[in-house]
Amino acid sequence: MKGLEALFSPHRVALIGSMSPGKLGAELAKQILAGKFAGELLAVNPKGEGWESIPGRTSLSQESHPVDLAVIVSPSSSVAGVLEDCGQAGVRAAVVITSGFSEIGNRAGEEEILRAARKHGICLVGPNCAGIANTHWNFFPTLELRPPQGSVALVSQSGALGGAVLARSREIGLGISKFVSYGNGAGLSEADFLEYLSGDPQTRVVALYIESVRDGRRFMHALRGCCQVNPVVVIKAGRTSVGKRATASHTGSMAGSDEVYSAAIRQCGAIRVRTVEEMMDLCSGFVSMPLPAGRRFLIVTNSGGPGVLAADWAEEQGLEVAQPSEAGQAALREFLPAHCALKNPIDLTVEGTREGFRRTLETLLPEYDSALAMNVSTPYLDSLGLAQGVIEGASGSGKAVAANFLPAEIAGESVEALKQAGIPNYESGERAAAVLAGMARYAGLRATRPGAGFASGTGASGDEPRMSLPGDGPLTEPEAMAWLSENGVRVPDFRLAHNADQAVQACRELGWPVVMKVVSPQILHKSDVGGVVLGIRDEGGAREAFHRLEKIGRDKDFRGVLVTAQLQGGREVLVGLSRDAQFGPVVVFGLGGIYTEILKDVSLRTAPVDDSEAMQMIREVRSSKLLMGARGEPPGDIRALAVLISRVSQLPLRYPEVAELDLNPVFVFSDGVVAADARVIRTPFIR
Amino acid sequence: MKGLEALFSPHRVALIGSMSPGKLGAELAKQILAGKFAGELLAVNPKGEGWESIPGRTSLSQESHPVDLAVIVSPSSSVAGVLEDCGQAGVRAAVVITSGFSEIGNRAGEEEILRAARKHGICLVGPNCAGIANTHWNFFPTLELRPPQGSVALVSQSGALGGAVLARSREIGLGISKFVSYGNGAGLSEADFLEYLSGDPQTRVVALYIESVRDGRRFMHALRGCCQVNPVVVIKAGRTSVGKRATASHTGSMAGSDEVYSAAIRQCGAIRVRTVEEMMDLCSGFVSMPLPAGRRFLIVTNSGGPGVLAADWAEEQGLEVAQPSEAGQAALREFLPAHCALKNPIDLTVEGTREGFRRTLETLLPEYDSALAMNVSTPYLDSLGLAQGVIEGASGSGKAVAANFLPAEIAGESVEALKQAGIPNYESGERAAAVLAGMARYAGLRATRPGAGFASGTGASGDEPRMSLPGDGPLTEPEAMAWLSENGVRVPDFRLAHNADQAVQACRELGWPVVMKVVSPQILHKSDVGGVVLGIRDEGGAREAFHRLEKIGRDKDFRGVLVTAQLQGGREVLVGLSRDAQFGPVVVFGLGGIYTEILKDVSLRTAPVDDSEAMQMIREVRSSKLLMGARGEPPGDIRALAVLISRVSQLPLRYPEVAELDLNPVFVFSDGVVAADARVIRTPFIR
Repeated sequence: MKGLEALFSPHRVALIGSMSPGKLGAELAKQILAGKFAGELLAVNPKGEGWESIPGRTSLSQESHPVDLAVIVSPSSSVAGVLEDCGQAGVRAAVVITSGFSEIGNRAGEEEILRAARKHGICLVGPNCAGIANTHWNFFPTLELRPPQGSVALVSQSGALGGAVLARSREIGLGISKFVSYGNGAGLSEADFLEYLSGDPQTRVVALYIESVRDGRRFMHALRGCCQVNPVVVIKAGRTSVGKRATASHTGSMAGSDEVYSAAIRQCGAIRVRTVEEMMDLCSGFVSMPLPAGRRFLIVTNSGGPGVLAADWAEEQGLEVAQPSEAGQAALREFLPAHCALKNPIDLTVEGTREGFRRTLETLLPEYDSALAMNVSTPYLDSLGLAQGVIEGASGSGKAVAANFLPAEIAGESVEALKQAGIPNYESGERAAAVLAGMARYAGLRATRPGAGFASGTGASGDEPRMSLPGDGPLTEPEAMAWLSENGVRVPDFRLAHNADQAVQACRELGWPVVMKVVSPQILHKSDVGGVVLGIRDEGGAREAFHRLEKIGRDKDFRGVLVTAQLQGGREVLVGLSRDAQFGPVVVFGLGGIYTEILKDVSLRTAPVDDSEAMQMIREVRSSKLLMGARGEPPGDIRALAVLISRVSQLPLRYPEVAELDLNPVFVFSDGVVAADARVIRTPFIR
Repeated sequence: MKGLEALFSPHRVALIGSMSPGKLGAELAKQILAGKFAGELLAVNPKGEGWESIPGRTSLSQESHPVDLAVIVSPSSSVAGVLEDCGQAGVRAAVVITSGFSEIGNRAGEEEILRAARKHGICLVGPNCAGIANTHWNFFPTLELRPPQGSVALVSQSGALGGAVLARSREIGLGISKFVSYGNGAGLSEADFLEYLSGDPQTRVVALYIESVRDGRRFMHALRGCCQVNPVVVIKAGRTSVGKRATASHTGSMAGSDEVYSAAIRQCGAIRVRTVEEMMDLCSGFVSMPLPAGRRFLIVTNSGGPGVLAADWAEEQGLEVAQPSEAGQAALREFLPAHCALKNPIDLTVEGTREGFRRTLETLLPEYDSALAMNVSTPYLDSLGLAQGVIEGASGSGKAVAANFLPAEIAGESVEALKQAGIPNYESGERAAAVLAGMARYAGLRATRPGAGFASGTGASGDEPRMSLPGDGPLTEPEAMAWLSENGVRVPDFRLAHNADQAVQACRELGWPVVMKVVSPQILHKSDVGGVVLGIRDEGGAREAFHRLEKIGRDKDFRGVLVTAQLQGGREVLVGLSRDAQFGPVVVFGLGGIYTEILKDVSLRTAPVDDSEAMQMIREVRSSKLLMGARGEPPGDIRALAVLISRVSQLPLRYPEVAELDLNPVFVFSDGVVAADARVIRTPFIR
C-alpha cells in the first residue's frame, strides 16, 4: 500500500494519544466511530487506554498485523519518539494533529519529527493540522464536522478554514470526496496532494486554500497536472500583508508576490477566488453543470429587478448578456404574451408560467452557452410549476443552467427539484452569474493552448544547456547589448568610444542624431547621474557630450562612451525580468513611465512564456491600446513585441545568473521592435 | 390625516377587487388579516363579496365614515373609475397593485389614473407594484412575505426585488419598519418616500432599490435630507445596460449615466452597494452597531486562516488593518500565551479562551475604530464561552464590533447571545469586514463637510441670477475665452487677427513662440482639420500660419485667427462640463489624452462643487500623482486647479445655455492654472 493510499484508505489505524474523556484522542475516537469506519482501530497511549469498542495498547510493537496509518495527538515533545515507534512497527503514514512546532518557533522540534518520518519512509501530514477525511471510505480522523459524501476534494493549509468549509458543505449539501489539512506541511504539502488528487477517481473538483507554497515551480507542475483532469479553485490568502522586497530593477518593484501568485495560478489553468463563499459556489457549479463553451449568457426571469441586477453582475464578471437572434426573438413572440420584453434578460413578469419558462429555454438555449432561471415567489404563486418548466426546458440541452429561486421559505421544494435535475440554486442571481463566469473562465483556460508557455519549460527540467553571462562582474551596457543580440533580441547599432575622436567617428558611421551614454560597471542608474545625452546632432555636440560623460565616469571604472543612433517615432514600452522568492523568474510587460509607475498598468507571468502567452500579456495591459493604433497613429508591431517578450522570458532559464533585467525603453515601431536600453542585474546565487 | 400618514397608518382601509378564492383580492385580504391589522377593513367589488371577517360592499359611496386608504387590485381598465369613486368618497391614499399600464406601453391608461388621483388629491402608489407594509401598524397590504418588525425602511422600485429582500429579512431576522414598492411610480416615487422617511421615528436605516429616478435633482435633495438623519444604502441597477448617448464634447463622452448616478449618490452621503446581500449586511450593521469614527480595524480570531482572509478583504475595502501600539502589544504580552502573534489579526489560536477574547478586546478596542471577533468552532470547543468573552470585551467600549462565529450548527447559541448584545454575526469574516468598511465610509461622508458642494446650489434654487451667453450662435474661441475670463477662469492673453500683418503684430505683443487657431463658428473640432498651428517662432512662420488657417476657414464663416502665446512647462489636464439626462450639469476632471480616453482615469460630480469637493475630485484621479510632483517635477498648483474646477462647475447654473464645455488642455503650473483651449456647446434647451 502506497503512502497516500495508506493515508486516505487505511485498513488498520492507530490513534496515538490520551483517551481520557475530554482529551483530543477521545474526541477523535468518537468522531471516527460516528463516521462508521469499517477498518480496524487501535488506541495507543502510555496507560493502554481504549475508547468504547477501540482496544487500548501501550505500544505498537506487539502488533502482529501492520498498522497503515497513525493519527497522532500526543504531546508535542513525544511526537518524534512516537514516529520512531511507528516506523519500527511498519506504519506507512502519519497525521500529526499535535501543535507546538514551527508555528510557535519550535523549528528544531519540527526538524526532529521530519527526520523520524523520513528515516522510516512515513508519509507525514502536519504537524499542527486538523486531520483528514475520506468520505468514500467512511473515514474521518479530524475534529471538524463530518461533511457529506461527494466529489469535491478540499486541501487546506489552515485547519480552521478547512473546518469552516466542511461545515458550510453540510449546510448547503455540497458533497466532499477527500479533505486534508496539512498545517505546517513539514512532510507532505500542497503539491503532493494535488498530484495525488489528479489520479483520484472519486474527485471531480479540487478546492485549495493556501497562504504560501513550499516550492513555487513544483506547485505549478502539480497544479497544472491537476487542472488538466479537473477544475481547481484556489484561495491564496495573505494578499495585503506581504511586505515589499528590496529590488534593484524597475521591473522587480512591479512584480509583487501576490501578483506572481495570481499569474502562476492562472498559467496553470486554475481559478483564483477571494472568498470561501465564491469557492463553495463555484465548486457546486463545477459539480452540477457541464462546462460552458463560451460567455454568451441568458437570463430568464419572472422578476424584473433581480434580473437586471444579475445582468449587471454577469457583465461585470465577463459574461456577455447578449441579445437573442432575430429568429430567436421571432420564435419567442409566438408564445410569449405581448407584455414580455424579448430582450435578455427575458422577463416573463409575475405572470410567467411553467410553459413560458420551458419554451423560452428550449428556444434560446441552443444559441447561448449558459443560462440562469430566476423566480422570486410569493405564497400565492406556483413556484414548483415554474421550477418544472425550467427543468423541462434545460433537459437534454447540454448547457450549464443555474437557478435563483427565492425565498427559501416558499421555494424549498422547487430548489430540491432543480437540484435533483442537476440545476444548482444560488442565493442570488449575482452569485449564480459569478459561478457561470468562473466556469467559462476555466473552460477558456483549458480550451486555449493547454499548457502554453509554462509547458515549454519550468527551468527545472534541465533540457536546455545552462550558460554563463559574459565576464564575471556587473554587465556594462555594451556587453548587455551584445549578449541580447546573440539571444535574438534586436538592439540598435552601437559603438564604444574611448575618446572624442572615436565618438565623432561613431556618430558619422551611425548617422545623426545620436545618443551617448556613460559606460561603467559602477554606474547602474545612468540617467540619475546625467549619464545619458540625447539628441546629439553635430560634431561639436558629440565632442562636448563625450567630455561630459568622461567626467561623470572619472573615478568610477570608466570604460568609455556608448554611441547609438537615436531611435525616433514608435512607442516606448518596458520589458523586464524579476525573480520571485517562491516562483523564480518572472517576466513583466508594461508601457513604462507613468503607466507602470503610477497606474500600475502591467502584466506578468512566471517565465518562460511562448509567443501566444506573450501576446496575451500585451493585450492585458490597458494602455496597450496605444500600440494598436489609437489616436490615429499607425499600429505597432505587436507580433514582434510578443516574440521579444517570449525570448526575454527564456533568458533566466538559459542564464541562471540573470537575477533582474530592465529593457526600458523598448521601441515598438510599425515594423519591428528594438531594445534601446538594457540593465542586467547579475547574481552569483543560482536557484 | 396627511396623504403619507393615510398610506402607512390608516384607520379604515378598502380592498378593491374580486374576493373570489384564488383572486389577488382574496390573497391580500388573507395577508392583512394574518398580519392582525387593528383598523377597519372593507372589501369593494361589483358583487359586494367580502372575505371572512371583512364585510363586502358594491361601492364606497354609502360609507358614513371616511376611508383613509384604498388598496386596488381590480382589472386595469377599471382602475381610473375606481379612483374617481375613491376621490368622491374622500379616500386620501391609494395603492394600485394592478399592472397593465406604462410597463406594457399603456401610457394613456397610466395618465388617466394619475389624472383621477390628482383631481382628488389622492396620494397614489403604483400602479404595477407589490404593495406596502408598516410593521409598527401591523399593516401588510402586500402579497410578499411579511417581514419582522424593526427599523430598516425598504423602498423598492421593483416589487420582486422588494419581495426578495423581505423574505431574506425574515431569514436573517433583520427587522423592517416600512416597506413600499412603487412600481411604475406614476404618483409618488423615490423622492417622496425618502422625504417622508427622514421624519419617520420608527426608521433608523433606509434601503433603496432604484433602476432610474424621475427627477435627478429632486432625488438628490430628498436623499441628502434623508442621509442627514439616517444612513441610506442604495442599489442602482441597470449599470451595464444603459446605452451610450451621442455627445458633442469630449467631456460628454466620459460622463456615462451610471458614473453620474454613483457621483450623485455619494455627493448626498449615501452608500451605493451592488448586491442585495451587501445591502442586507450593511443594514444589519447600521442597525446594531455604533458608527465607527475611522478606519482602524482590529481582528481577534481563534482561527488563523479565516483571520488572514478577513484582513485581506478589509484592506481591499479601505479599512486599515493597523498594528497595535507598542503599549498595546506590551499589555497583550502580559496575559496572552507566548505562541499568540501580537500582530493584527491577533490570533489566539485554537487554544483561545473567553479570557483571551475579553482581555484582548478590552486592551485594544480603545485604539481601534471597529473590530471583528472570529471563531471557527468544532464540536469539542466551547463556542459560547468565547462569545461571552467577546461580549464582555466589547461591552461599554462604544466601538462597532461584529462577529463571525461558525459553523451555524455549533455556534447557533453563541450567535444568538452575540446578537442580543448588539454584536451582529456574519457568514464570513470578509462580509463582516465589508460591513464595517461601508459604515466607516458613511461616517466619513457625514463627518466631512456635510453637504459640501451639492448644498451650495442645486441649480433649481434660483437664488443666483441666470445669464445669457454672449451672442446667439455657437461661441467662437475668442468669445469663449473672454466669457471664461469674466467668470474668473484664467485664459492666456490673446489677439484676434484678421490679416497677416495683424497676426505678426499680435505675435510681437504676446512674445514668441505663439499658437494660432482658426476662428469659425462652423469649425468645432479645430485640430481635426489642421486648424491649430503650434510653435510659431518668427515672422515668416506667423505669415505662413495665418495664410494656411485663412484657407482652412474659407467658405466656413471665417472670423479670423486667434493668436496666443504658447504655454510651456506645466502639466496638461482636462476640465469639462456635460449634461446628464437625469441629473443635469456634471463637472468632469481628468489628465486628458490617453489618461481619460483609454485609461478612463477621470472623476466627476453633479455640478456645482465647492473648492474642497473639487480637491477631492483631483485626488480621486490616479494619474493626478503626476500633478503632485511625481518623477522629480515641481508640484503643480492643485489649489488653483480646484478653484478653477469649482468655478467651471458654477457656469451651467449661471448660464443655462451651456450644454457642454471642454477646457482641454488646462495648463497646471507650479503657480497657477491657465485654460489654453475652450470649446462651448450651446443649447437653446434650458432645463
